[in-house]
Amino acid sequence: MTTVGILGGGQLARMLALAGVPLGLRFLVLDPSAESCAGQCAPLQVGGFDDEAALEAFASKVDVVTFDFENVPASSAQWLVERVPVYPNPQALAVAQDRLSEKTLFRELGIPVPAFAAVDSREGLDAALAEIGTPCIIKTRRFGYDGKGQFRIKSLADTDAAWEALGAQAGTVGLIVEGFVAFDREVSVVAVRGRDGEFKAFPLTENWHVDGVLSASLAPATRVSEAMQVQAVDYARRVAEATGYVGVFALELFCRGETLLANEMAPRVHNSGHWTIEGTEVSQFEAHLRAVLGLPLGEPAMRGVACMLNWLGEMPDANAVLALAGGHWHDYGKSARAGRKVGHATLRADDAVALSQALSSVGDALSRQAQVQPVIARLAEG
Amino acid sequence: MTTVGILGGGQLARMLALAGVPLGLRFLVLDPSAESCAGQCAPLQVGGFDDEAALEAFASKVDVVTFDFENVPASSAQWLVERVPVYPNPQALAVAQDRLSEKTLFRELGIPVPAFAAVDSREGLDAALAEIGTPCIIKTRRFGYDGKGQFRIKSLADTDAAWEALGAQAGTVGLIVEGFVAFDREVSVVAVRGRDGEFKAFPLTENWHVDGVLSASLAPATRVSEAMQVQAVDYARRVAEATGYVGVFALELFCRGETLLANEMAPRVHNSGHWTIEGTEVSQFEAHLRAVLGLPLGEPAMRGVACMLNWLGEMPDANAVLALAGGHWHDYGKSARAGRKVGHATLRADDAVALSQALSSVGDALSRQAQVQPVIARLAEG
Repeated sequence: MTTVGILGGGQLARMLALAGVPLGLRFLVLDPSAESCAGQCAPLQVGGFDDEAALEAFASKVDVVTFDFENVPASSAQWLVERVPVYPNPQALAVAQDRLSEKTLFRELGIPVPAFAAVDSREGLDAALAEIGTPCIIKTRRFGYDGKGQFRIKSLADTDAAWEALGAQAGTVGLIVEGFVAFDREVSVVAVRGRDGEFKAFPLTENWHVDGVLSASLAPATRVSEAMQVQAVDYARRVAEATGYVGVFALELFCRGETLLANEMAPRVHNSGHWTIEGTEVSQFEAHLRAVLGLPLGEPAMRGVACMLNWLGEMPDANAVLALAGGHWHDYGKSARAGRKVGHATLRADDAVALSQALSSVGDALSRQAQVQPVIARLAEG
Repeated sequence: MTTVGILGGGQLARMLALAGVPLGLRFLVLDPSAESCAGQCAPLQVGGFDDEAALEAFASKVDVVTFDFENVPASSAQWLVERVPVYPNPQALAVAQDRLSEKTLFRELGIPVPAFAAVDSREGLDAALAEIGTPCIIKTRRFGYDGKGQFRIKSLADTDAAWEALGAQAGTVGLIVEGFVAFDREVSVVAVRGRDGEFKAFPLTENWHVDGVLSASLAPATRVSEAMQVQAVDYARRVAEATGYVGVFALELFCRGETLLANEMAPRVHNSGHWTIEGTEVSQFEAHLRAVLGLPLGEPAMRGVACMLNWLGEMPDANAVLALAGGHWHDYGKSARAGRKVGHATLRADDAVALSQALSSVGDALSRQAQVQPVIARLAEG
């Protein structure tokens, strides 16, 4: 009997547990909140990620540790890895936690990235802006997610406002300025690497964000040349091999014509891979567990086409989705809160026309035309 | 927030919970054993099905009740239905619990059945044998499952032995004699009926039993004419409508050429429908929950072909299955025990040739050629 420990008890841990129970796995989830939604289908230990007594109790009960949350303190991950196998390894986690380390690694690996420069003072910001130019974005190096901890600098006139918004964090989590990329679209590769180095990637997915938060994902991304698919997967492979990564991760890329620029990596199962639950033979959640346990990774090939729609704030009416042949519902069992990821739907179909119709139907039924329209437009381009 | 109560905490409750968590459902499982495997992924209340205090506590915490186990005492089901919605209804459950009521209903509905006669004494057995002839089978009317509570009477010379084996139960659970059917194959229809009367059926499945226990299922069943598929689904619909059934059930049929004879119904999700987890857009488990909750039933159409292999006694090595592109593993988290259903595998493929190859590979790797060979032979017939 194998028990998998998961640091973090949100929807990712919840979906990992649902995928792992059929494999005969037991789980233990560690999270500071007794309300963690993963606790509805897996044993939950309430405790802080930096509480050594909690980590001690947790480590004594699990055979292997993984994460639903990448911002676990590096010292906690290091403490754990000295006692129990931890995947992905703390070094890979540390790289992904810091936008500067991450982009430096991408550049070292020959993966194109937008221009970037670290900033640790107001003078440093001026120097970075002189080097990179405007428009650009200033971001915290650590703990940013879903568009938080970012400020867009359209021209030098915004410099004071940017420093006022984020300057206080220069000495804590650190800051980085990134050149603005006029991209056509955003795509991601969700990939998995096993303990033995075996590597597989799910099909390239196109993603739409609203206010920095994922709104919709379409898989496979349309109009992707064989060369572009190979390039994206090769970038993901380089990152995985360089960091000795084990498990599932996502590499987010900006796409301008056939050119790909790496934006960031997420060292965990990823929102842009949720459609794999119904869309591929093995889901990203099962693939992650298989990798972490040293089992065969499974088959990431698609069945048809799929679109994932995120639900933020509160759950809409399920019937609009459940009434469709390929409609699948995922309610994370969370209480409603503005902007919170509370669930998603996946629409699966055998072809683009059927998927467009399903999206249109859901958009109308839920008055969410704005959410589905960009995807429908993309499908119409063929 | 809706809480579904499940009476019985075995693998069926476990798979119901796994299917229902994404719908945002909470569960409470009632079972006499603290070791019930559904307790690994859903809250478990330990208590007897006939313990009124336990039922009272259970009923107070759930919004709707369903079953993973059909032999819940009729009085308990009745007690519950006076307090909370119960699906399927206790009358449907009662019919399915008693082979005599069940076969009588089938006959009333114009569904062909093997010859049968109730037996309540040794003299009655002689009379039944005179009427039905040999070979035949004597079975307990209630509480038989997986081939238990049955005795095959090859000729009148077996009468004493049959009575010795089962006669004591004539006055308790009752006995029935059924004519022996020289069938070509055994098939089942897994179907679902909603609270509003909507009815859908999964594709006809062929089943192989060993010592009365399901060993393998193949879906869709091969060489099924349109007329035969329609006939089988029509029989299932008649039973569902006559009993006011809500939820998933299985109708097991003997098949001789194009003729179908009803064997029995199981008033719950069924072992011969486990392949639907990967093989159809909506699984039997999700379809059951949707029906019970009054939601749209979902789409039972298949994706390719699938074979389910039952694991009895102890789990074999998972790698043989997980290494295959369409290999899916289901470990019920039970301790090993001779003859116990401890898990299953489903092999899904896009066509019969690929499925045959997968079966052959698993048969060889696990030294289970005898289990896979009948399925491979059937697929080869085309």
